[in-house]
Parts: sequence; C-alpha cells; structure tokens
Amino acid sequence: MPVRPVSWSKLDAAARTALLSRPGAAADAATRRAVGDILERVKRDGDAALRELGVRYDGVDLDDIAVSEAERRAATAAMPRDTLAAIDRAIANVRRFHEAQLPQPITVETMPGVRCERVSHPIDAVGLYVPAGTAPLPSAAVMLAVPAAIAGCPTRILCTPPRRDGSADPAVLCAAGRAGVSTIFKLGGAQAIAAMAFGTASVPAVDKIFGPGNAFVTAAKSMVSADPDGAAIDMPAGPSEVLVIADGGANPAFVAADLLAQAEHGSDSQVVLLTDDQRLAALVVEQLQTQREGLSRRRIVSAALEHARIIVVDSLVTAVAVSNRYAPEHLILQSDDARALLPSIRNAGSVFIGPWTPESVGDYCSGTNHVLPTNGYARSYSGLGVDQFLRQMTVQELTRDGLSSLRDTVSALAGLEGLDAHAAAVTVRLESRQ
Amino acid sequence: MPVRPVSWSKLDAAARTALLSRPGAAADAATRRAVGDILERVKRDGDAALRELGVRYDGVDLDDIAVSEAERRAATAAMPRDTLAAIDRAIANVRRFHEAQLPQPITVETMPGVRCERVSHPIDAVGLYVPAGTAPLPSAAVMLAVPAAIAGCPTRILCTPPRRDGSADPAVLCAAGRAGVSTIFKLGGAQAIAAMAFGTASVPAVDKIFGPGNAFVTAAKSMVSADPDGAAIDMPAGPSEVLVIADGGANPAFVAADLLAQAEHGSDSQVVLLTDDQRLAALVVEQLQTQREGLSRRRIVSAALEHARIIVVDSLVTAVAVSNRYAPEHLILQSDDARALLPSIRNAGSVFIGPWTPESVGDYCSGTNHVLPTNGYARSYSGLGVDQFLRQMTVQELTRDGLSSLRDTVSALAGLEGLDAHAAAVTVRLESRQ
Repeated sequence: MPVRPVSWSKLDAAARTALLSRPGAAADAATRRAVGDILERVKRDGDAALRELGVRYDGVDLDDIAVSEAERRAATAAMPRDTLAAIDRAIANVRRFHEAQLPQPITVETMPGVRCERVSHPIDAVGLYVPAGTAPLPSAAVMLAVPAAIAGCPTRILCTPPRRDGSADPAVLCAAGRAGVSTIFKLGGAQAIAAMAFGTASVPAVDKIFGPGNAFVTAAKSMVSADPDGAAIDMPAGPSEVLVIADGGANPAFVAADLLAQAEHGSDSQVVLLTDDQRLAALVVEQLQTQREGLSRRRIVSAALEHARIIVVDSLVTAVAVSNRYAPEHLILQSDDARALLPSIRNAGSVFIGPWTPESVGDYCSGTNHVLPTNGYARSYSGLGVDQFLRQMTVQELTRDGLSSLRDTVSALAGLEGLDAHAAAVTVRLESRQ
Repeated sequence: MPVRPVSWSKLDAAARTALLSRPGAAADAATRRAVGDILERVKRDGDAALRELGVRYDGVDLDDIAVSEAERRAATAAMPRDTLAAIDRAIANVRRFHEAQLPQPITVETMPGVRCERVSHPIDAVGLYVPAGTAPLPSAAVMLAVPAAIAGCPTRILCTPPRRDGSADPAVLCAAGRAGVSTIFKLGGAQAIAAMAFGTASVPAVDKIFGPGNAFVTAAKSMVSADPDGAAIDMPAGPSEVLVIADGGANPAFVAADLLAQAEHGSDSQVVLLTDDQRLAALVVEQLQTQREGLSRRRIVSAALEHARIIVVDSLVTAVAVSNRYAPEHLILQSDDARALLPSIRNAGSVFIGPWTPESVGDYCSGTNHVLPTNGYARSYSGLGVDQFLRQMTVQELTRDGLSSLRDTVSALAGLEGLDAHAAAVTVRLESRQ
C-alpha cells in the first residue's frame, strides 16, 4: 500500500529528520567480512580464485572469462534493429553532452615571468562494472563507456556477471562495444572489483573503478579504494532515489508514473513527493494504485512504495528547502514555471524540469549521465562526467626574473615555517653564476 | 649519508620495483583503533570530548576552542610587514591561478527539444585542516582557503592545533583571515577531523574536509569518508615526494638544493633523482653533502636522504618512463629544453620546468596548489583545485516533441532492462490529453 500523505508543518524536528532519513548505507560487518575474504583470495590466487568464486556465486565454471570477439559479434548479430538504433541514439546523445565537458588547458601568468598551467590527462586504465541484478543494464555500459572513451583512457575494461549458460548479456556486450569498450570479462560481484583493483593473469589492474552494484560490489569498491595497492573509485553508492516537487497544476498521472519508475528499480528505492497541494497528493496516491496494476515488477514496486514519502508542504519554497536538505539523486520539478525554481536548487544529482521530462529520459538517453550521487552525497559529490576519467596536472615555469621577484616571498614564508632549504633552493639559484 | 647512485639498466624487474616502492601508506591497526576511539568519543560527547582530548594530545585545557576576533587581530598586528606582504603575494598569485579554474556552465541541445545542462554549485560547508607538526604551516592555510573562497562555499571553517600556551599560531591565523576564513578552531589531530565530520555544539558539521596531516589525521579522514554520517575528503595522503629528472647540463647545486628542500619536510620524505649522466649524479651527491651542512633541519634531512634514490638511466626517455611509473607528487625537469619533455609526462601532481623553477615556489607562491596526490595517487587523482570545492549538477528539460522523439529509444532500452514503468513514464505523458 502506498503511504498516506503527511503534513510537514505538523511534524516536529525529530519527526522531520526521521522522515528524511535513509536506510543505513554502510555495509554490515558480515558483508564486509565476506567481501574482505573475497578480496584477499583474488589478491592471492588470481584467476584460480576468480574461477572458484564464479562457480560459487554465479553458478558457472568458465574456462575463459574474457568475452571472445566471436561472442561479441554474435551478440550484435542477434540484436533487433530497433534495439541497435536505441543503443546508438543513447550513445550519440550521451556523447554529445559529455564531449562538451572536456576541459580546456589553462595558462595564467600570475606575475611577469611566473607561468602556471593546468593540463589534463586521461587516467591510464579504468575498469567499468555493469551489474546484472534483476535485469541486464546495457544503459549502464553506455553511461560508463562513453565518457571513458571521450576522456581517452587508453585501457578501458568492463566486467559484467556471466549468465547461468556462461554467456554474457548480449545487450550489454553490444552497448559496450558500440560505446568503445572491447575488453570485457564475465565477472561479477566483489570478485570483479578485486580483479580490476589488483589485477590477475587475465584481468589487467586498473587505476580507477566505476559503476553501480549491489551491497557486495559497493563494499568491495569502498575497501579497494582505501587500500594503497587498490584502485580509486567513482563515488560511494546507495539505493536509487527520486524526489518530485509538484504543485496543484501538475498532472497526477505524470507524477505517479515517475514515482513508479523509481520504485521499480528495487524494493529499497527511495521515493519522495513534495507538494503544496493536498488534492494533488490524494490524486497521485490514486494514480499510484491504478498505474501499478499493469506493471510487471508490481511486487518490487509495492515494496518500495511501503516506505515512500508523500509530504504536503505549505509552499514550493519549503519544498525546495526540504529537497536541498534531502539532497536527492534525481529531482523532478513539475510546477508552474518549474525552471524558475532551478536557481534555488543546491543539492541534487540531476534535475528534470517540467511536464515532458520524466526521469527515464535521463536514465537512458537525454544525454546526461545516470551515475549520480545517492544517499545525500549530492551535497559533496558530482554525478559522473568526463572529469572523473581525467586528472588535472599543474605545471609552472619561471624565468630568472620571475624567480627573483618571488625571492622575498619564499624567504619570508620559509622563515615562518622553519624550512631553510626551501629558501636556499631559491637563493642558491639566484646567487649562482649560471 | 646520501645514498649512492644505482644504475637502472643493471637492475632486474624485482629490484626496479623495490627501488620505486614507497613505505606503506596504510595506517597500522593500532593507529586505526586509536583513531576509531577518538571518532566515537567526539561523535558521542561532542565538545566535552574535544576538551579532554586537547588536554591529552595538545597539553592544553581550553575553555573556548574558537579563535576570538581579538586573537585574530592581535596576530595580524604582531606580524612584521614583510611577512604580511609575503602572505598577500602568495594569496594574490594562488587566487589568480585558481580563479581561472572556475568552470563555465554548459548547455547542449543533444537533439531538437532535448536540452541538457551542467551547472556548478559550491559545497555548502567545507572544513580545512592546517597541521602544526614540526612547524606552523601558514602556506597550507592559503592553499586551502583561497580555492574555497573562489568556489564560494558559504561555510568555511579551519582547524589548527593549539600551542602549549593555548594560542593558535599567529601566522596561520593571519594567512587564513586574509584568505577569507574567519571561523577558526584550536583543534588538532583526529579529534579535529571528527569534530568537522560529525559536528559538535561549537563546531559545525561540514560536507567535505580538506588538508594534510599526520598519520592520525590521515586515518581519521579515511575513516570519516567511509562513514555515511561523516564527510567527504579531498584525497588520500602520504609522505611528500619529489622526483627530479636532470641531464648533464643541469646545475648540480640547483638539483641538490631541490632534493634537500624535499628532504627537510620529514624523515619519511621521498627524494628521487633520475639522470642520464653519471658525472652529474656524483656532483649532486657532493652538493648534497656540502649544502646540507648549513641547514637547521640537518637531522631530518639526513634521515630522509638515507632512503633517497639516485638512479642513473640510459636516456631521458627512460627517465620519463620511470617517472610515469613512479607518479611523483612533484616532478622537476632540469634538462636541456625541459619543456620538450612535458608532453610525455603523464603521471605527476605538479611539474616544475627548467633551472629557475624550484619546488619551493610551488609550495608557496607561484600560484599552483601545493596540496597534491602522493604515494602514486597521481595516477588517479588530481591536485587540489577549485573543482574540488564545487559539485556539478546536471539538468534536462524536454519539450513534448523532444520527448516524443525519444519515445522509441526509452521503450527499447526499458524493454531490454525489464523496466516497464520507465517506458510508461513516457507513454503516459504522450498519450495524455494535457
């Protein structure tokens, strides 16, 4: 049963905090222990461990975890034409938006003879993880592979769990290939993360790992990112979330459809509606009941709706304040002149403006990335973009005169910090005859 | 005693790996346990815990950990004029280079009627940590506070350990104030990180914590960043490092001065010279001996030089390859036409080009940031810049026609992923009479 609307103004501070709280995102001790074991085994036994873990967790014993060129070709050949067209359309839009994100080099002469630069380089080796979970996720392959290709990362590998018959999902293979990733391994779960972080005979070690996953994958990413021998990661992850702000002019059917689309991701999906109109809240609840009936993932949807929150606020100003406090992954604005709210939105992963912008276009094909900060991390993290596949390196070059003009500054600051060799590195130069 | 030069070509693979290895950067179990205790106590007891921990670790019992306006004014009044000028010069140059890093908003119409945007927001609350360690570090205050101010983070607080007399270092107060931070707390170590991550009655909780520190601070940052109730952090940290690439034309006195400047940071500093000229290597060793004599931190320098590495390579091409493999925090190029090497440098935090560019100008005042990735993290992390004080939020807005043109794409991809509510969110809109 969908929850009943609650009135924000009638709640005290503690009730408000409780209403906006999320289920704990930290892995429990048992999960961390199990993942720790998997990481250790892969570190120690490499491919042998991967094979054994594949039998245990994926129920399949693979001679070769690498997807062959033949398997990739067969996957594309088997794909209906309209499916290929959809994948290509998604790739084209995501590519267009992400290409615009490539940073330009910066050069600034901060003083005469003191030239500072910033240049970017792609990360040498990146690992992309595409989960299977309740369904294959070719869209995740697109969202990870396209920015990696635009950044120009020389080594791009992708891991995705094998199916029971030992094959990889053909749509994932197809999407990855068309988005520029040709090295694909049939590996899932924590062992996939371990393989990419530490490397094995078959799987090259990468510098950074990207992509969503279940609790095991998330814990594994967190653990390898804290290991100096491991790899960096894109961002911490939690269950997917949507927050809709709607006023009395919104179409309740549209609002309900967006809430249901979020709810079908998983029973732990976070679904929040904020409205200043009691009547709309009631109509949305009705629509949730009606529209839910036709959905194939009805049970997941119902489970997620159990903890959905429909909150009636006194104004859209309050709605925006509550949303900024919650910091949702996805924020949908369905109000009169929705764009006018945008400047006051501070904390959100991605924003969907107006009646014709359902979240599902961002999930698939508008061009924005669907890998976004959950669990309130939008307060401090950005969604995935080309930047996260690059590193910025600074450069400086001084002339003799430039150095001379900074001599007193270095001397004074080195003096404060008791670092005479820092000052000497300047004076030894300026006092030399070279 | 400075180490003796070794010849790269005479080493086997294992010896090369050993030569380029760093001391373990992971906190040992005892440190993590101690830090875990401190985090728990601050989380539970707030200010009372901070006071108690201040007595234990800083040897001072403070009624009020907040630096008063009077203390800040007195610090500036006591500062010699040339010191203030040096601080202001450093701030001006760092500001100029970092202002150029502010990203522009992006708008792309990926298809007719499908508008995607990326806008940036400052992180609401940031916490800056300036260690005291063997000496106060006003330069760290500049490097952290200036980009935070340029990004426009509304809440910027700074923690720095109190001195035995209960005051904060006046140079740090002065630099922080002039760089735009006026909320300063006399707090050091893991308890400072805990206070900023979780908040106490006196210290506001922040969204992200920046800055260097000792093993306790580093472990505390790592632990709060893994805690969903904690805070994000800038980057993992390890001992400071320099790698110099020099050819036979380099001035050995300049090279030695840079190595010594790095060595004086701490006995765990990493100091590496790569040269294709045996004679230069020998001259640098002589210069290290001579120049070291005049330094006040001779003992620290000697300890760091014990594990310095002077490596003779067959060519500068090899030198660059070895440097890229090592991925140094600071890379100094002192060779004929040093700039010509730059395009082949992939992994480094900051690069210093030519004879007139000692690392100490970057540490203090050229304009680049001195908070840089150590321990090989330059392979996957950038040095500090304005970006890390911002978050990128994406936005999309479709027209009815734009949505209509993506209908088949969403349908096909939602079909592959078994997510019918995702497709329904589009069809319910296009089939409505609104």
